[in-house]
Amino acid sequence: MYRTNTCGELRIIDKEKKVTLAGWVQTVRKFGSISFVDLRDRYGITQLLFGEDMNQQLAETPLGREYVLQATGTVTERSNKNPSLPTGDIEINVSSFKILNRSAVPPFTIQDDTDGGDDLRMKYRFLDLRRNPVKNNIELRYAVNRAARNYLHRQNFIEIETPFLIKSTPEGARDFVVPSRMNPGQFYALPQSPQTFKQLLMISGYDRYYQVVKCFRDEDLRADRQPEFTQIDCEMAFAEQEDVLQMFEGMIKEIFKKIKGIKIKGKITRLTWEDAIRYYGNDKPDLRFDMKLTELKTIFSSKKRNLFKKEINESGFAVIKDAELVGAICVPGCSEYSRKQTDELTEWVKRPQIGMTGLIYVKCNTDGTLKSPVDKFFDESKLKSLAEKCKAKPGDLILILAGKEELTRKALSELRLEMAERLGLRKPDEFKLLWIFDFPLFEFNEEDNRYVARHHPFTSPKPEQIHLLDQPSQYANIKANAYDMVLNGNEIGGGSIRIYQRELQEKMFAALGMDKEEQQHKFGFLLGAFEYGAPPHGGIAFGFDRLCAILGGSESIRDFIAFPKNNAGRDVMLDAPSTIDDKQFDELQIKLNLKN
Amino acid sequence: MYRTNTCGELRIIDKEKKVTLAGWVQTVRKFGSISFVDLRDRYGITQLLFGEDMNQQLAETPLGREYVLQATGTVTERSNKNPSLPTGDIEINVSSFKILNRSAVPPFTIQDDTDGGDDLRMKYRFLDLRRNPVKNNIELRYAVNRAARNYLHRQNFIEIETPFLIKSTPEGARDFVVPSRMNPGQFYALPQSPQTFKQLLMISGYDRYYQVVKCFRDEDLRADRQPEFTQIDCEMAFAEQEDVLQMFEGMIKEIFKKIKGIKIKGKITRLTWEDAIRYYGNDKPDLRFDMKLTELKTIFSSKKRNLFKKEINESGFAVIKDAELVGAICVPGCSEYSRKQTDELTEWVKRPQIGMTGLIYVKCNTDGTLKSPVDKFFDESKLKSLAEKCKAKPGDLILILAGKEELTRKALSELRLEMAERLGLRKPDEFKLLWIFDFPLFEFNEEDNRYVARHHPFTSPKPEQIHLLDQPSQYANIKANAYDMVLNGNEIGGGSIRIYQRELQEKMFAALGMDKEEQQHKFGFLLGAFEYGAPPHGGIAFGFDRLCAILGGSESIRDFIAFPKNNAGRDVMLDAPSTIDDKQFDELQIKLNLKN
Repeated sequence: MYRTNTCGELRIIDKEKKVTLAGWVQTVRKFGSISFVDLRDRYGITQLLFGEDMNQQLAETPLGREYVLQATGTVTERSNKNPSLPTGDIEINVSSFKILNRSAVPPFTIQDDTDGGDDLRMKYRFLDLRRNPVKNNIELRYAVNRAARNYLHRQNFIEIETPFLIKSTPEGARDFVVPSRMNPGQFYALPQSPQTFKQLLMISGYDRYYQVVKCFRDEDLRADRQPEFTQIDCEMAFAEQEDVLQMFEGMIKEIFKKIKGIKIKGKITRLTWEDAIRYYGNDKPDLRFDMKLTELKTIFSSKKRNLFKKEINESGFAVIKDAELVGAICVPGCSEYSRKQTDELTEWVKRPQIGMTGLIYVKCNTDGTLKSPVDKFFDESKLKSLAEKCKAKPGDLILILAGKEELTRKALSELRLEMAERLGLRKPDEFKLLWIFDFPLFEFNEEDNRYVARHHPFTSPKPEQIHLLDQPSQYANIKANAYDMVLNGNEIGGGSIRIYQRELQEKMFAALGMDKEEQQHKFGFLLGAFEYGAPPHGGIAFGFDRLCAILGGSESIRDFIAFPKNNAGRDVMLDAPSTIDDKQFDELQIKLNLKN
Repeated sequence: MYRTNTCGELRIIDKEKKVTLAGWVQTVRKFGSISFVDLRDRYGITQLLFGEDMNQQLAETPLGREYVLQATGTVTERSNKNPSLPTGDIEINVSSFKILNRSAVPPFTIQDDTDGGDDLRMKYRFLDLRRNPVKNNIELRYAVNRAARNYLHRQNFIEIETPFLIKSTPEGARDFVVPSRMNPGQFYALPQSPQTFKQLLMISGYDRYYQVVKCFRDEDLRADRQPEFTQIDCEMAFAEQEDVLQMFEGMIKEIFKKIKGIKIKGKITRLTWEDAIRYYGNDKPDLRFDMKLTELKTIFSSKKRNLFKKEINESGFAVIKDAELVGAICVPGCSEYSRKQTDELTEWVKRPQIGMTGLIYVKCNTDGTLKSPVDKFFDESKLKSLAEKCKAKPGDLILILAGKEELTRKALSELRLEMAERLGLRKPDEFKLLWIFDFPLFEFNEEDNRYVARHHPFTSPKPEQIHLLDQPSQYANIKANAYDMVLNGNEIGGGSIRIYQRELQEKMFAALGMDKEEQQHKFGFLLGAFEYGAPPHGGIAFGFDRLCAILGGSESIRDFIAFPKNNAGRDVMLDAPSTIDDKQFDELQIKLNLKN
């Protein structure tokens, strides 16, 4: 062993002990004839004192930043204690030392606030991983992993590894494929998720399955996606939706307790998908703040929700009159926004990413008066009625958007998040969980001009709506026994109760435009398995990278992955992907067919 | 929830409780107007009693094998108890039931001794997984996984996930490759092991890393190999060989204690690679029995080991005289083998798989006399001397093989195992662990006419032999700081102390025939990392599938993998690999280039 102790463990109680430490040189400070070296390892930093003798030796073999050093000496009490360091009461009076390895000058400083840019840090990821902020993320990830495993283990879940070299069944996302040398002309696919395997395991009677597992999707990468990502994948047999929700409420609560020391009391908020859309404009609302949407007018809504329609139409305000949806949010404490500020907000909603034609606002002054640039269209009683409808309080700023239903809802949702951001309401150390359930079974894919499964083709429709599968005109109305867990505006998990009867699964595949032959080719094994006593079952998969990022107070999953890829799917450290040898092409019996 | 209890948990203490169970119909037995049903789930079997009323309903909806049944009723004491079943004191007097799903007649019986052949069971793997022997294997696998994780966690190891889409650096085994759609003409490779990543993590200061991780090798599959397999992959920084050996001795001991209830006392046996070859003819000897090889003559050996050479040559026995190696084993208790038996053994060693030209034997009779068909070549004193040399005891049968050094050693090793097998000395419930160390750094690859790394190119030579890397003629003599853990004649883990200096790594690559350009292209990231303060480090990887198989008393890893592939690398259940769509070829910009 190169050391007797780590750089994080020695305390005043160890005084007089002879110890050997090994680690990296963080800093070297010379004071006349003596030197101090901060030695760093995974566990902390310990100060080494090089007295006159040692200092002379040091002069012959000077230390640089990130040198790997082994030092033996006696634990002594520091005259100048450092209360911000756990080892700050002591130092090691070095009696001998050895440079285990030298280091070139690192391309950026190994400090919490580094001077290295993103690209440089990705290229030298092995150095970036030395920095505390990154190390803390990696350690947090392990702690979450372990908390989840321990909870699931106690609940009788068993981890079963499912294969990585499977069959390509592209449905939704693209598969990564792997040419098979032993079966020329054929390909494996990497799993987008172990979905069908975990269902087979339920059919096999394994009852409660989990796996912390890599999954693969060959998609065009948006800002915070990775081609390979990790899921906590779970499935339960003989379970109904309520059983699954309760089980994984338990898991997330345990994770919060173990990782953040936060005890979540009571049940997690539940919202139907429809209510989420209505009140927040999207299906993964951030509930760290309120600012619900008020629908002032909507062409699709029930009578009750349209009460205001008449009044608002009578205002004669064209934008509003012709809109499919008129919606508002009340932003607390912003009634004194200046003209400049409201103009800037108007520009913000008119940006192409948001796409609104304008913004109407009503200031609810603290003196009880209401002020709006559109008061020529609304008399005071109408403004008052509008403010009441929005449940506005004095000091609030009402922001109103109008336009096409879907676009406006999305814009209101974005505006809500933007205002919360500006008001500092999206605190990284505050956590709000909720369940969204009763998702639509299908969604219409404009590009392919057909319905696709919103979750996946194995999700069960509500039992009472199964008969609607015979009526394509009703597809938009069918709800699924599907649920998402949302944390601070991010989907961290999603699942469903599954189909477990062959006939229903075939009907579902057919509804998705898959003929019998394709069904058999792609999913014959699953349809076959349903014939041999498949139990009712359901499950969930958590996006492990995302969960860790949010728990770590970050929005970027990349910071929580040891060796992530960039937006082009490249590992810039490895320089992968890369070309392969002719011999490999030859053995695999494939060749390139480049388009240009 | 579909059930209040599992089929394995009810006992006499639960008498009078109203319960609901759900599971699979194992058997239905009718007795006049009542029926008994054995209901099975992951946890056990419970007997259901269908009284007259229920039985009538049952007649209308008859149950078949493997039907999924939900039954509610009262726990009652059985009149006819079944002591072989944990639930055998009770039965459920059914008051209502529901068939949750039907089952076709399974293609083989779901019983410990099934009537299904291998191919059928692989195709219907989801049914085979229901059988107790397979289920026990999968559960054992999980228990081993957990025991290893818990041990490593307590020892401050941290699990860090390494990427699956990496760079192709074929060196030894073939890579599976994955075409990159976003980087046309380029390919990822699936990792053969996380070797370079775990070394980078040591350079990053993570100190103690582990991962239970899938690895991939595109090799022609021998009987018991899988293209994807699982490793318990570990690495330690600031560690010497002795530290690694002790750490993982601790792990394997804990696994034995937790899984088999076996407390392994004292240190695990250690053998140098040279001694293993000398005494057992191979580097993963089965130590459940003795039968060491005695070298009667060897051209390569030291004087001391060749003491017998003169005598044996003087025998005038040509086969022996011309042999590079003459070796013997003493098989206990076989001195009374019949002529038929020794003839059969002779045929056995002459099979092409063994390749010997013949077998010489000496019977050490219990009366102290020696008998051999070759006593015309050996006078009695020579026979006696030979028997003494072999440390033969009365009752032993000495078996002697002679021929080319390597072939004969291998043949003796096979013969040793075969005799042990015949004598019942290879007991699946007996476990003998050992370390083999001081492996050669290189081995000569006849096919490529060059030296290759015996372990891998990152293994450190013995420090005192580093200078020999400049002398190719000495390559065969260089030993490595490399070690294997062997269990019952199988390598279950292997590792080494690694190179951590750029210059030495470059020298090693060069010795393996890799020029600077190739080094930079394939391993530039690692060579670069060595420049920034790489600590001394080493590690080990356990073959998790194999470890589980041996602990489960089996030689076949396939039985311990939920969804294994066959010898052609196919998943016959999924029918994978398979063809892919034209659209996929088009997007990936590759095409087939089939040879026929």
